Amino acid sequence: MKGRINLNADLGEGFGPWRMGDDNAMLEVVGSANVACGFHAGDPQVMAKTLTTALRLGVSVGAHPSFPDLQGFGRRKMDIVGDELEAILIYQIGALAALARAQGGGVTHVKPHGALNNMACLDGSLAATVANAIGRFDPALVLLAPAGSQLVKAGHAAGLRVVEEFFADRAYTDDGNLVPRSQPGAMIHGAQACVRHVLAMLSAGGLISISGKVIPAALQSICVHGDDAEAVATARAIRAGLIGAGYELVTVPALSSK
Amino acid sequence: MKGRINLNADLGEGFGPWRMGDDNAMLEVVGSANVACGFHAGDPQVMAKTLTTALRLGVSVGAHPSFPDLQGFGRRKMDIVGDELEAILIYQIGALAALARAQGGGVTHVKPHGALNNMACLDGSLAATVANAIGRFDPALVLLAPAGSQLVKAGHAAGLRVVEEFFADRAYTDDGNLVPRSQPGAMIHGAQACVRHVLAMLSAGGLISISGKVIPAALQSICVHGDDAEAVATARAIRAGLIGAGYELVTVPALSSK
Amino acid sequence: MKGRINLNADLGEGFGPWRMGDDNAMLEVVGSANVACGFHAGDPQVMAKTLTTALRLGVSVGAHPSFPDLQGFGRRKMDIVGDELEAILIYQIGALAALARAQGGGVTHVKPHGALNNMACLDGSLAATVANAIGRFDPALVLLAPAGSQLVKAGHAAGLRVVEEFFADRAYTDDGNLVPRSQPGAMIHGAQACVRHVLAMLSAGGLISISGKVIPAALQSICVHGDDAEAVATARAIRAGLIGAGYELVTVPALSSK
Amino acid sequence: MKGRINLNADLGEGFGPWRMGDDNAMLEVVGSANVACGFHAGDPQVMAKTLTTALRLGVSVGAHPSFPDLQGFGRRKMDIVGDELEAILIYQIGALAALARAQGGGVTHVKPHGALNNMACLDGSLAATVANAIGRFDPALVLLAPAGSQLVKAGHAAGLRVVEEFFADRAYTDDGNLVPRSQPGAMIHGAQACVRHVLAMLSAGGLISISGKVIPAALQSICVHGDDAEAVATARAIRAGLIGAGYELVTVPALSSK
Repeated sequence: MKGRINLNADLGEGFGPWRMGDDNAMLEVVGSANVACGFHAGDPQVMAKTLTTALRLGVSVGAHPSFPDLQGFGRRKMDIVGDELEAILIYQIGALAALARAQGGGVTHVKPHGALNNMACLDGSLAATVANAIGRFDPALVLLAPAGSQLVKAGHAAGLRVVEEFFADRAYTDDGNLVPRSQPGAMIHGAQACVRHVLAMLSAGGLISISGKVIPAALQSICVHGDDAEAVATARAIRAGLIGAGYELVTVPALSSK
Repeated sequence: MKGRINLNADLGEGFGPWRMGDDNAMLEVVGSANVACGFHAGDPQVMAKTLTTALRLGVSVGAHPSFPDLQGFGRRKMDIVGDELEAILIYQIGALAALARAQGGGVTHVKPHGALNNMACLDGSLAATVANAIGRFDPALVLLAPAGSQLVKAGHAAGLRVVEEFFADRAYTDDGNLVPRSQPGAMIHGAQACVRHVLAMLSAGGLISISGKVIPAALQSICVHGDDAEAVATARAIRAGLIGAGYELVTVPALSSK
Repeated sequence: MKGRINLNADLGEGFGPWRMGDDNAMLEVVGSANVACGFHAGDPQVMAKTLTTALRLGVSVGAHPSFPDLQGFGRRKMDIVGDELEAILIYQIGALAALARAQGGGVTHVKPHGALNNMACLDGSLAATVANAIGRFDPALVLLAPAGSQLVKAGHAAGLRVVEEFFADRAYTDDGNLVPRSQPGAMIHGAQACVRHVLAMLSAGGLISISGKVIPAALQSICVHGDDAEAVATARAIRAGLIGAGYELVTVPALSSK
Repeated sequence: MKGRINLNADLGEGFGPWRMGDDNAMLEVVGSANVACGFHAGDPQVMAKTLTTALRLGVSVGAHPSFPDLQGFGRRKMDIVGDELEAILIYQIGALAALARAQGGGVTHVKPHGALNNMACLDGSLAATVANAIGRFDPALVLLAPAGSQLVKAGHAAGLRVVEEFFADRAYTDDGNLVPRSQPGAMIHGAQACVRHVLAMLSAGGLISISGKVIPAALQSICVHGDDAEAVATARAIRAGLIGAGYELVTVPALSSK
């Protein structure tokens, strides 16, 4: 065995009559699911159904809380901080945890969604609020956060267990941030290119930037997407590539440490 | 001591910039608060603040879940049943429970709100769904339900502890239902009239209908309102009247039994 | 020419990140689009984009207002009547009309959505409220309503122009209502079966019930669906079948009369 | 006559069961009402009722559109621009215009709400989007905007008629912006102090900053508040003070010019 690694995906992102991606296919691929909690996607029934499948397949479940912005899918920056943000996060995590508990399961990690995640990766104060909200609800929850981000630091500072993730299909800058989608080379295209990118970074022990620089990082979990058929195929290829290379696929909580 | 009794009120029914009633005043009066969970009123921050005051004052907290209808304040009948209704209820109860847990407290009962409550009082199937949802999340939660209703029966059938409530300011029909507000005599007006109505029913050991008939019932909790200054004064008068008559005021969970 | 007929479809039923059906394909098939107005689907940007394509293709646009129920897609019965329902309808029609006007176009008809439409087909009082709301905003708007329904009667009574529609893929009972989806034979399966059903009814001059009975009706517009690839293919086949049989395809307002 | 001036207030800011301020009292004081359009406050029925009273009293009506943020009352910055913002604005203005038309009235101006207004006062690009949205729906609508702001410039550039407003109860900085509420002296307290502040600025022909500097500006409309009894009393005092000083009180459209 080369080591243990996790695959995670954002799932349960339908709402009412609308579906997004092929959750059932992705739940066969990943070890952990970040489940929408109703504020950017995921009504209570969508949440319950996603939980049922995840629990049946042994996929660990994380809450994927967002700013309250259904129309914008939680991708719009909003100016919500402090006590209000804490309350919004705890509300969402608790709602999902209750639906999991009603099915005999539980929520084991939290990964913020969209604009909130992006902002908290760069803003230490926002990151601290996120980490504190999680810890106040349940200090045993794992924070799943982008490798090297302010969220990782805030999680450790709050005494949370943290698992660091990176992307299979995104290029990184020399300082370890994502190359903006608007720039050339931001996306890694093709399943096999993603597999090579992932395996190269794992071998190097860090993010490999678009210029070839290695940024040492804890690479514990890989975020994959399932928006369309090609994305599902890419996720499957990454899973197969990791197994073929001798990695053991595990859940987020199996990897966590303080 | 004549016996133990509870006063409960629906609180935390503001939303965003809007407030409803004088929660702080009412939390000095009641033993238990039914706190809105975001679907008919009560955003996460309103919920958190209501919990803070309730916990400080030793008021026990119940979830007050609703149909998803902010504009209609949960007072409009909606056709939501079965798995979807269960998910909607568990979501709301869990959200409030999480906010309470984050403050070192807990939720100890559930009382459905508005149209959902009214419908479930009469419809055994809907009542069973409500009771099952509560039991699936936490079988230790108490169901607070109108005396003699289908909800009471469904709660017992589901193995829940049940506390039965009645109204201080509403007249009852001979079959134990509320006289519709559209009919004369539906409301008991004046604080002292409410106090006399309550004490007479407690002495009689049952609801006293508008025609004077006694309908034997478990009268354990009295629902009071705090919408305006007069309502708060009435609630205070009922509290004083009960204490003066030798009743001990307790919380919902202190009264519950299977 | 055998006569003039309209094809209509419910479009613009995405919301935020979610899409429903292939609007662009359907806008090539139909003469008139019923566009969601934000209460069951269709945020302002989705509405604007649907209008742009409809106006470019010469498809006439109708408002498709709903009860306020995004999560339930407007398919749940709600108890909203009178002045409140009027305000809800005028709000939605006006919002779409404004977006059309900003693009140099206009809204020429109204077709209620989902549960509201179903309820108003049977309930003369609700139907009258719908018709009055339309007339109060703009008495020149056409009401597109199921053939023979209370909505048709209420529209005429309110002095509106009315166009009557029927379904290509649904069976009718002997009294002219839709066979409930829960019963065998409710749906007509297969594009050619739908084409034959439509042409037979047009030849007969009325709805043909599942038992073969002809119910005389004004058959002016055919409602087609575009939820999936097969539905789009069926819609195209119906269009081709009508043209092949000598019908002229027109818009809703081209057919309307008082 | 010293000249003509307008008093305006933000009204119709209830939602569902909640009310805000005393709209009926304020509609007796002001010449023009900025009516919420459902995105930060104001459901369709609240809008309709506000319109009824405004039309009865001869108060001119403006749309008061907002970012979609009911929970945050439209006071939170959101990252919504371009076509999406245009669609959101036209949707809201059109909804209110339709409700007004159904009552035989009309909407004659637009004033953006909350964070959107604040951002557009400083950001020329956002201001241009606001002005273009208004002009695309109806170029005859007046833009009511803070004196000297980017919104005023954008309105003129878009060919709109513009009316400039200032606040009776807020202090201004030397560059003509509002002193932030967090700073001492930001608010003018007391009805008579507000009256003196308003009359002094009108006599000086410009805003008078907290340091006493006069910033020449078109002072055409005064924004007053009606959140509580004291605010209503202040608004009444300002009205009386203006009349006593010889000003004629008129509506927004009566003042507008290109």
